[in-house]
Amino acid sequence: MKIGILGTGIVGRTLAAKFSSEGDDLMIGTRNVSNTMAKGEPDGMGNPPFKEWQKQNQKVKLGTFSEAATFGELILLATFGNVTKNAIDLAGKENFKKKVVIDTTNPLDFSKGVPPGFTATLGNSLGEQIQKYLPDSKVVKAFNSIGAHIMVNPKREEGDPDFFLAGNDEKAKKQISAIVTKWGWKSATDLGDISQAFWLEALAMIWINYGFKFNSWSQAFKLLKK
Amino acid sequence: MKIGILGTGIVGRTLAAKFSSEGDDLMIGTRNVSNTMAKGEPDGMGNPPFKEWQKQNQKVKLGTFSEAATFGELILLATFGNVTKNAIDLAGKENFKKKVVIDTTNPLDFSKGVPPGFTATLGNSLGEQIQKYLPDSKVVKAFNSIGAHIMVNPKREEGDPDFFLAGNDEKAKKQISAIVTKWGWKSATDLGDISQAFWLEALAMIWINYGFKFNSWSQAFKLLKK
Repeated sequence: MKIGILGTGIVGRTLAAKFSSEGDDLMIGTRNVSNTMAKGEPDGMGNPPFKEWQKQNQKVKLGTFSEAATFGELILLATFGNVTKNAIDLAGKENFKKKVVIDTTNPLDFSKGVPPGFTATLGNSLGEQIQKYLPDSKVVKAFNSIGAHIMVNPKREEGDPDFFLAGNDEKAKKQISAIVTKWGWKSATDLGDISQAFWLEALAMIWINYGFKFNSWSQAFKLLKK
Repeated sequence: MKIGILGTGIVGRTLAAKFSSEGDDLMIGTRNVSNTMAKGEPDGMGNPPFKEWQKQNQKVKLGTFSEAATFGELILLATFGNVTKNAIDLAGKENFKKKVVIDTTNPLDFSKGVPPGFTATLGNSLGEQIQKYLPDSKVVKAFNSIGAHIMVNPKREEGDPDFFLAGNDEKAKKQISAIVTKWGWKSATDLGDISQAFWLEALAMIWINYGFKFNSWSQAFKLLKK
């Protein structure tokens, strides 16, 4: 499958590498390709510059937001939440039509440092905003309440966490559930339609706040079903 | 210990019975004692009338909100969330002074049926509202993101869930953690100060929405720590 990912950060890279290792054809999109390739320093979280990462992941193409969105039969949004809609604008809304769009983003505000603030309100989660912005796409909120390394390596020492997702299109959710089951997720828990994205974004805040409080980044939620 | 519980519903009853079975001295408070004792029908959720329940729990006293708050060295709030502040008013704010107050309530709106709506906003969770309303009390948000039967019987077939709590007073949180550890909770996870109550109330919504979607009421969250 051809997959386009918007965002060159750790989430975009990690998911790109995983899909690519499974045989999919990947393009990561960025605002400005030459700027992204010119960066020689690690980012604020200590991740190596993109060009270093790409040396290890040569099958993953780099393009503009627009090129990546056009390329992808499936599109993943993996930018910071506060610039996601701008990235969609730059990518061209028409390039998302009828496609499954996985929204991994969170409505975070880092302007006052960490832990970040939360900018969504009930009924206006980032997932819902994106679904409204792309009414002809099948938006699935997923991957947003855990760190990138866990997305592709779910098993924890203490057990198997749940993969939570929400969205209006049942078939799209089944498709994503099948993918992550192949990746080792034992339980994909569908919380309902895209309005449930608000609670998934809230769940991310528990993960993030716990992380900063205990300097712990390996945790993940399991919903004991019975 | 003398414990006062505001609210005669299933949460108040279940916690009262558990504390009482551990040797504590319990009084449940209600708006109007004779009305509560006069009810002969099950409530909307099929719970038996209070007087039937009390026959099986004769050590638990029934009093007014004010009598229960005066009685308790520790106070639990177990009313519907939309009437909690009114219950505190009727109980007399002065009767909460310097006490630990466990807030088990949720900001739910059942006026449009189920699943309920959510009435809190960021920075104004019910837990924070109650702490502001009772500035001389040590409010601990706890017990709010699971059903009553799980509060006192945490072990699930699929594992041991986490007991989540939040509040400004470290000693109060340690006291509650010690109590629930005796009840069989394996992990009491302190999410931080009372501002974290918002996320715990959001977590309750995941529990509730999942419950209505799958008609499942035995689930509970575990935070896999590593």
